[in-house]
Amino acid sequence: MTALELQGQAAKAAARKLAIAGSADKNRALLAIADALEDRQEEILAANAQDCENAKKNGISPSLLDRLTLNPARIRAMADGVREVAALADPVGTVTEMVTRPNGLMIGKKTVPLGVIGIIYEARPNVTVDAAALCLKAGNAVILRGGKEAFQSNNTLTNIMRETLQQCTVYADAVQLVQSTERESATELMQLTGYLDVLIPRGGKGLIESVSRNAKVPVIVTGWGNCHVYIDDTADLQMGANIIENAKCSRPSVCNAAETLLVARSVAKNFLPLAKAQLDTYSCEIRGCSETCSILPDAIPATDEDWDTEYGNYTLAVKVVSGLDEALEHIAAHSSGHSECIVTESYANAQRFLNEVDSAAVYVNASTRFTDGGEFGLGAEIGISTQKLHARGPMGLEELTSYKYLIYGAGQIR
Amino acid sequence: MTALELQGQAAKAAARKLAIAGSADKNRALLAIADALEDRQEEILAANAQDCENAKKNGISPSLLDRLTLNPARIRAMADGVREVAALADPVGTVTEMVTRPNGLMIGKKTVPLGVIGIIYEARPNVTVDAAALCLKAGNAVILRGGKEAFQSNNTLTNIMRETLQQCTVYADAVQLVQSTERESATELMQLTGYLDVLIPRGGKGLIESVSRNAKVPVIVTGWGNCHVYIDDTADLQMGANIIENAKCSRPSVCNAAETLLVARSVAKNFLPLAKAQLDTYSCEIRGCSETCSILPDAIPATDEDWDTEYGNYTLAVKVVSGLDEALEHIAAHSSGHSECIVTESYANAQRFLNEVDSAAVYVNASTRFTDGGEFGLGAEIGISTQKLHARGPMGLEELTSYKYLIYGAGQIR
Repeated sequence: MTALELQGQAAKAAARKLAIAGSADKNRALLAIADALEDRQEEILAANAQDCENAKKNGISPSLLDRLTLNPARIRAMADGVREVAALADPVGTVTEMVTRPNGLMIGKKTVPLGVIGIIYEARPNVTVDAAALCLKAGNAVILRGGKEAFQSNNTLTNIMRETLQQCTVYADAVQLVQSTERESATELMQLTGYLDVLIPRGGKGLIESVSRNAKVPVIVTGWGNCHVYIDDTADLQMGANIIENAKCSRPSVCNAAETLLVARSVAKNFLPLAKAQLDTYSCEIRGCSETCSILPDAIPATDEDWDTEYGNYTLAVKVVSGLDEALEHIAAHSSGHSECIVTESYANAQRFLNEVDSAAVYVNASTRFTDGGEFGLGAEIGISTQKLHARGPMGLEELTSYKYLIYGAGQIR
Repeated sequence: MTALELQGQAAKAAARKLAIAGSADKNRALLAIADALEDRQEEILAANAQDCENAKKNGISPSLLDRLTLNPARIRAMADGVREVAALADPVGTVTEMVTRPNGLMIGKKTVPLGVIGIIYEARPNVTVDAAALCLKAGNAVILRGGKEAFQSNNTLTNIMRETLQQCTVYADAVQLVQSTERESATELMQLTGYLDVLIPRGGKGLIESVSRNAKVPVIVTGWGNCHVYIDDTADLQMGANIIENAKCSRPSVCNAAETLLVARSVAKNFLPLAKAQLDTYSCEIRGCSETCSILPDAIPATDEDWDTEYGNYTLAVKVVSGLDEALEHIAAHSSGHSECIVTESYANAQRFLNEVDSAAVYVNASTRFTDGGEFGLGAEIGISTQKLHARGPMGLEELTSYKYLIYGAGQIR
């Protein structure tokens, strides 16, 4: 057995125990973890300082260094995040749709944990704690595989969680960190059939593509979005400008940020200069179709590639379309299925957009930036799914569960 | 583009149209298909006769030939099956959990079709029609890949469905049959990313293993079961004998049939001869552990392999265990996660079994043979999932849907 298979085996055994733990036990463990993170802050900061020093030596970018760096306030925020998860309702053990069949069998569906969840993620060490807390609360064991830059931080955080679990429960192995950060260890985790019930990769297009090439275990794809905002003929143009400014510029690195603006031809001449004035305050670059470029002479001509790009920065692709039909066609051809918005005052067009766009979140007159577990009222999220199987959009605790059928009989045979 | 990619592209385009079709349109199409199957019975029988003749030349077994053969009664049953699907409630378009958030956004979840579903199956041509009807009703396009033996039958059935769809709707391409029955075409379908939203393989362990090796698209594993019946210390022994007789012998080829009997030591001497007398009427072979063989001298000694085998015939593995704990351990180690049953009069043991067994269907005092969409009240089923992601146990129309979030705003930005 490889080191990872041994971890898988241990996680599976812990998951069996965790699956039958009560909410009270799970919450006690989560609260103890939150306290331990604060009590052992010095250890965490020391490990993180090592990571940051190595990263600087390797010439990490300032924005990545910022995501990697921990400080007392960020550790407190992590601990508070765990306390918030403890306070959420337990998604496990709910029995629904129980019916009595004509033959007297009582049949119902009970929510149960998924089992063992693998998570592959990149720089931010807080994901280690956030993801573990959500998995534990939903009764799942988790095998974490973080980025190389954050290994010392992740390892210290994981050890603190494991030692706390050891002290107060019987399932310390429910949280494990893959000890290698070589590329091969990610591939091995993607192929850990027999141990992993699901793998959730959190990262950019490169990671998602590697998963789709290599994974042999069930996967929930999260974390990349080519989101569209469409300004309809009847749009309130000032509302449209505010929405595209917010959707593009409030936080361009995240997956719910807009990447492409579509504008109905009838309003393009009035709308585009208005929008540009607001985008200019962020020095946002515009890559436009030829009509856009003729209205906005500063715009850079777009190539076909632009319609499929998640920029993740202050760049926006802009296309003038004949109206709703062409907008729907463009979205169907280029969207990643994350979030799309129509800005319109037309009831009929709003309804058509809601019906016909096949994405996780479809908006009328609101910024795509709201696609988020907290904003949707799910309490917390482990990622935003862009696939249709199992979970779509923000994934909260419920999406980390499965179900089983319970059947109460009295000797029935068929 | 390969022939299959072209089919995928056409299916995807049809799925977009089908996704926004109303229930009335879909039901009209289904009823027209049912009528067409009966009206064009002669064509179907002629194609099926060709398949049966070829199969006989190739030395097909009598039981497979029986599954392949169509006759007027079986065609009527297929057509009636389609009418039953038409009569079921449409699973698409239900909006649930709609809430108004503090910022005024109204957010709800709407059920939507999965999109394009691939199905790989073996000999029985009725699956072609059953599966297509369920997929259509839930608003999905389907790409069918049936077995070589049934190709002429499947092709004729598919053409009748496509011609009917052509006449009464805009989505004839919503039903397609892969035109090659070579092994490579199954592998290509497993890797048709960008077109398939989910693949449902229906078949034996060999197909499931090939899918887990080759699939690049999301998969729902169905159709194989290593089901257990455990006779507890306090069991009503006659009830136990009736249940194991029914679970093993009423239809041993199906996935919800029992393969292993576990018996608590305290009742083994009384129970095993009773059960054997009932199993003997089917000439059921018993592969027993050493204790079983000492109680039942006719039993064949079991090897380790027996505990992991889905026999699919009149063979039963039998093991004496110390009690509930050992039964739970054995099931955790060997079950395929399909269906397991405890026969007991102990309230506490019944509850423990229901809580701790991690299978799609967990029974107290009833035959595992009830794990079935019809028996569970789902109306019809496309298969029985043994995985935990998306769907578990019998999959009805609801399990052929996903959801999207609808967000009604009034200009909100974040």
